[in-house]
Amino acid sequence: MGVSAGTSRYDVDLEASWSIGTKPHGGYLLSTMAGLALDEVHPHPMAISAHYVASPDAGRATVEVERLRTGRSVSSSRIRLSQDSIRVEALLTAGRLSADADVFWSAGGPPDLPPLEDCPRAPAEGPTGLRVGQLDHCELKIDPSTAMWALGAPTGTPEVRAWIRRDDGNDPSVLDLLVFADALPPVTFDLGLMGWVPTLELTVLVRALPAPGWIRAVQRGRLLQDGWLDEECELWDSEDRLVAQARQLAGYRVPAGYTPPNV
Amino acid sequence: MGVSAGTSRYDVDLEASWSIGTKPHGGYLLSTMAGLALDEVHPHPMAISAHYVASPDAGRATVEVERLRTGRSVSSSRIRLSQDSIRVEALLTAGRLSADADVFWSAGGPPDLPPLEDCPRAPAEGPTGLRVGQLDHCELKIDPSTAMWALGAPTGTPEVRAWIRRDDGNDPSVLDLLVFADALPPVTFDLGLMGWVPTLELTVLVRALPAPGWIRAVQRGRLLQDGWLDEECELWDSEDRLVAQARQLAGYRVPAGYTPPNV
Repeated sequence: MGVSAGTSRYDVDLEASWSIGTKPHGGYLLSTMAGLALDEVHPHPMAISAHYVASPDAGRATVEVERLRTGRSVSSSRIRLSQDSIRVEALLTAGRLSADADVFWSAGGPPDLPPLEDCPRAPAEGPTGLRVGQLDHCELKIDPSTAMWALGAPTGTPEVRAWIRRDDGNDPSVLDLLVFADALPPVTFDLGLMGWVPTLELTVLVRALPAPGWIRAVQRGRLLQDGWLDEECELWDSEDRLVAQARQLAGYRVPAGYTPPNV
Repeated sequence: MGVSAGTSRYDVDLEASWSIGTKPHGGYLLSTMAGLALDEVHPHPMAISAHYVASPDAGRATVEVERLRTGRSVSSSRIRLSQDSIRVEALLTAGRLSADADVFWSAGGPPDLPPLEDCPRAPAEGPTGLRVGQLDHCELKIDPSTAMWALGAPTGTPEVRAWIRRDDGNDPSVLDLLVFADALPPVTFDLGLMGWVPTLELTVLVRALPAPGWIRAVQRGRLLQDGWLDEECELWDSEDRLVAQARQLAGYRVPAGYTPPNV
């Protein structure tokens, strides 16, 4: 205990079906990396911070896991995904979340969403023409009032709300939460910025084991400035529990001739 | 470009004056570590994620900086602080923030605080009897309505608001923001939990270079459950700009005989 247990090395195959255009989805990478650093005593990612150093491609990659410390309640690991050079590096604190933990104190509640049948499924082939792989793997049903950009009428408020579950209909696992936390469309679409929003850094806190059923997600931006924005995503389970909190720093570009939404 | 430039090694002295009890302040560690990984092209920490593996002690420590990638707009580094074994590991994405960037989009505004003269300075010798080192280094003036726990009357709402600046009165540097983002009292005090709240993970996004003058800070918790809580801190500068967003995952304990605040 308390001593680094060396580094393990894994060959992984990054599936092209998860790519956005040609680049693997960030949440898929995170979930793949975290899954290799868990153990029986510390089976749940509690806090994972990933810095996206350079986009990998689909295909073969190497993941190195260095256990930094194995404690009684939590373990710490460094996880590095490489293809020739480093592509993503992450730090993980893992532990064991209780299945029946009571809330001691909580602020707020799940996002208010229209019924599932009133939320259209986001297509993997999106308005930008890009194929968005995670939308084949996830059934994402967006509150239409937060998807007006798809109709060419962005609302001017960077907030997207949606129902989400696995495309195979299975109940969410704790690793699925790492995918869902990065699966919604960029909030910049709401501002009429339809370009790619590359993630620099993404941290996900997993707060509880998700109950069976659909997850409700809300993603917001707080500040767009100097080419960088934050995106914050909350995931709530079918029992109205906050199961994950994520925040990322990403880049945005304002194209020439941009006109702000007419709000 | 694009290639790891090896690892640099630094001896540092963790000053005892920064300790909380006997353990160095987390923001001080973060700022010390980040300062060693910056360069002239990428002088500003934009996103730093630290996992606190095991508390170091004051005194000699080693910091290893591995540059993961040096790109045009950002650099990525892994930073490890050790004393015999690993104590803190962090990932840093650094770049150059513009001094005069315009806000493209922003939600909300700075916390509403009483005038400075109506906010008492938080003493380094706090209600728990512990010496809180960062409060000798920072002048922290707390909105009294969010410090009722100091009078034995916690409000029941985990939110603290305060003015903060360096104790020497100098204007804030970008590295000072990493200290300030972890300098407020734990929000658990507001719930009548007066114990230590050890940080597992802390991520700080620096969003702008701070203007001269006082910083306004607000720190909130969203969920306490299963022994873990999130704490989120926002820092706003004297020109009403959001300069940093931080979130941490920390542990709390409910002592035997705990009675919730009478609210």
